Amino acid sequence: MTDNGIARAVDWVHDNEQVCLSQFIEFLRIPCVSADPAYHLDLQRCAGWLLAELRRIGFQQVQVLNGGGAPVVYGEWLEAGPDRPTVLVYAHYDGQPVDPLEKWESPPFEPAVRDGKLYARGALDDKGGTMIQLKAWEAMLQAEGRLPVNVQVLFEGEEESGSPTIEALVQQQRALLQADLLLLCDGSTPTSQPKICYGLRGIAGAEVVVRGSRRDLHSGLYGGIIHNPVHLVGKMIASLHDQAGRVQIPGFYDAVRPVSGEERERLAHDEATARDEVTAISGREELWGDESDPWYVRAAALPTCDVNGVWGGYQGAGAKTVIPAQAGFKVSLRLVPDQDPQQIVQQLVDHLNSFRCRTLEIDILLGPGAWPATMESQGPAVAALQRAYQATRGQQAWFYRTGGSVPIAGFLQRSIGLPILDFGIGVGDNIHAPNEYMQLLYFAGCIETAIHFYHYLVE
Amino acid sequence: MTDNGIARAVDWVHDNEQVCLSQFIEFLRIPCVSADPAYHLDLQRCAGWLLAELRRIGFQQVQVLNGGGAPVVYGEWLEAGPDRPTVLVYAHYDGQPVDPLEKWESPPFEPAVRDGKLYARGALDDKGGTMIQLKAWEAMLQAEGRLPVNVQVLFEGEEESGSPTIEALVQQQRALLQADLLLLCDGSTPTSQPKICYGLRGIAGAEVVVRGSRRDLHSGLYGGIIHNPVHLVGKMIASLHDQAGRVQIPGFYDAVRPVSGEERERLAHDEATARDEVTAISGREELWGDESDPWYVRAAALPTCDVNGVWGGYQGAGAKTVIPAQAGFKVSLRLVPDQDPQQIVQQLVDHLNSFRCRTLEIDILLGPGAWPATMESQGPAVAALQRAYQATRGQQAWFYRTGGSVPIAGFLQRSIGLPILDFGIGVGDNIHAPNEYMQLLYFAGCIETAIHFYHYLVE
Repeated sequence: MTDNGIARAVDWVHDNEQVCLSQFIEFLRIPCVSADPAYHLDLQRCAGWLLAELRRIGFQQVQVLNGGGAPVVYGEWLEAGPDRPTVLVYAHYDGQPVDPLEKWESPPFEPAVRDGKLYARGALDDKGGTMIQLKAWEAMLQAEGRLPVNVQVLFEGEEESGSPTIEALVQQQRALLQADLLLLCDGSTPTSQPKICYGLRGIAGAEVVVRGSRRDLHSGLYGGIIHNPVHLVGKMIASLHDQAGRVQIPGFYDAVRPVSGEERERLAHDEATARDEVTAISGREELWGDESDPWYVRAAALPTCDVNGVWGGYQGAGAKTVIPAQAGFKVSLRLVPDQDPQQIVQQLVDHLNSFRCRTLEIDILLGPGAWPATMESQGPAVAALQRAYQATRGQQAWFYRTGGSVPIAGFLQRSIGLPILDFGIGVGDNIHAPNEYMQLLYFAGCIETAIHFYHYLVE
Repeated sequence: MTDNGIARAVDWVHDNEQVCLSQFIEFLRIPCVSADPAYHLDLQRCAGWLLAELRRIGFQQVQVLNGGGAPVVYGEWLEAGPDRPTVLVYAHYDGQPVDPLEKWESPPFEPAVRDGKLYARGALDDKGGTMIQLKAWEAMLQAEGRLPVNVQVLFEGEEESGSPTIEALVQQQRALLQADLLLLCDGSTPTSQPKICYGLRGIAGAEVVVRGSRRDLHSGLYGGIIHNPVHLVGKMIASLHDQAGRVQIPGFYDAVRPVSGEERERLAHDEATARDEVTAISGREELWGDESDPWYVRAAALPTCDVNGVWGGYQGAGAKTVIPAQAGFKVSLRLVPDQDPQQIVQQLVDHLNSFRCRTLEIDILLGPGAWPATMESQGPAVAALQRAYQATRGQQAWFYRTGGSVPIAGFLQRSIGLPILDFGIGVGDNIHAPNEYMQLLYFAGCIETAIHFYHYLVE
């Protein structure tokens, strides 16, 4: 009977694929950059769209949980009964900023299909993740009249800004969120080969602004007597790494858990292919970093520090000979167990404070932090997912550890002790970059994987 | 008869002050940023406006000297006769870039008068300089029918971009430019106290672009293995100065002529007032730099290095966790005798090349260089100018040496050996910055100073 249920739901997906795709495109048309306050109302529109969809497909208690930031969309379907497990599904509807806008071949919020790829900001990360779930549930509810498990859903709207408010919100809603498993639906692969992530880096970061004179000054008249804030920004950035690429913030590596031999072996899996992928995407033959550890260990299991942006003075064509009034940079740190984001950010601040001087002011604005997380790599939920991949993609997933961060994962793991399963089933590329896309060949297939997984969880 | 001539010309200025001002405003309305190719046609319009004015007031041989860059406007009035000296007048009609545009209280190319100040890009530097000359000549030609000396004029259109083409042009036109004195009409003072500059720094500079991956990459997925170009830019900028502020480019100070005790005394003139001015303009109580020399020596008689702009990655609101594909900066060096701009820029390039590595590409684009220059501080031309200041401002000028640069000064001094007199008579402030303005109280007075000077040159 269950297999018949799967077949009916899958048939529904095939019969309705074009409608599902139209709805996805409608959703992608709503701009969604959470880092920029200009998109505030658009995020409300995204949340409104999700609320309406959840109600339409038959979820209950559909509402916004108000934590003071972008709306968190909640809904539940608990009619599978108390003997069936409850799965808490997390995804996010906000996206990364879209600049450099001129590098997009079609505008980021005007979804376009070219060569079987659907291009838009959020096509994968992570409106794609929300959409695959919504359509899997709709298919099962339409075709079978029920879901095989109980489901609670949290769709966040500020993951790409570091999830600054969801932690307090979840703590406040602990009585509501009584699930057995957290499905983390925020991931993708560039090819059809499925992967299951069992480790995420945490994150900490800051924006630093250095202020000098009250306005830009003529570098001929004031050169040699007015401290140029770009020079201090240069010294601060230069101080972050040694020549080998090792982070120089005092204490930074103190809490890093050593990477075991077994872990190193697992990380080395398919190293040559993975390295070819890195070269293809980056365009770089030569990788960088402290060669005391192999690149695949550095990319996932060791902490990093990157300046994500720097600015100051004249950036236009030609020359403008000024001493800029101010300069600044944004820096983020990726953390691994057992680095504590609060402690690390304090080390960063202490380090930056060592550059204070009487000739310039330094303002440091802290970004939200997130704990690193470890996730499921064995057990019944993993077995159900592997069966689902085998059934729908003809192959099981590889396990990997990623250098990326999903703040809620580390937080939920620490605060309510839920086991977390990575359910990143989208196929595509260019997340966080221009021309983000989803491979449409796998769109229906990803929904089918989800349908299979929910059924196999209870078989 | 000469005194009557001065009086008639001065009367003409008073009778026509409003018309002169209207024409000045008309001139300032034509945008004039030479650093930005978008203004190419506007510079042609500026040159056209000057050609028409020179013809209208009675100059001959009015023409564009084509050196391949922005038009150089030439004109002459040689009817004073071979027994009278010929003065070559240099000024420039282009201006500095206008950003940050939002800091202008009125748009830079919509001249506005507030509190007796005329605000516009170029109001002082240096459309103001061209205008004062044009109106002095027009006044004398209208009121007296002649000028007391022969005049040749060169109005340049790319001084703020480092005068990249005028050097070759002047060499080509050497037969034409047979003057006895070069008047350098490109300077101003913030108060009515006139000043005569007797030294200018030279300049050299470069734009550096560091390229890494072919597009911005996710700093979680690629952090630790892809070299971040901002990090190398930080190390390059940090390497330019030691902690004291001394430039660290190898060989940079080798050719610097020691500053004599007499020179130090002259530079110390009115040090307290000058320092108050620096504090008022910069908003900084604490000055910066290598304290082995006093600030007023560093500001004018020692070389400097300033990063005028830096960029890379995400500069918007909030966070975007990318490894930028590229980053860059613009750097300029101010030079003093006997630093050779070509040699210094080679030292800079050699130094920057020491940062080359296999994980990033470095592109270095050289800016135009200029020799430092020394100018007249005694002799009959200086005496004529002091008399003119005494007659029109009630006080003689102070002598000073500036940290600024006027490329053609060093070049003409070296190539055709002309004595150069600083004739920077505009009064106002905020050159190279938002809200550049001329004090209108002194507009007619500056024209009168010029009229007196030309007469006193031959008395």
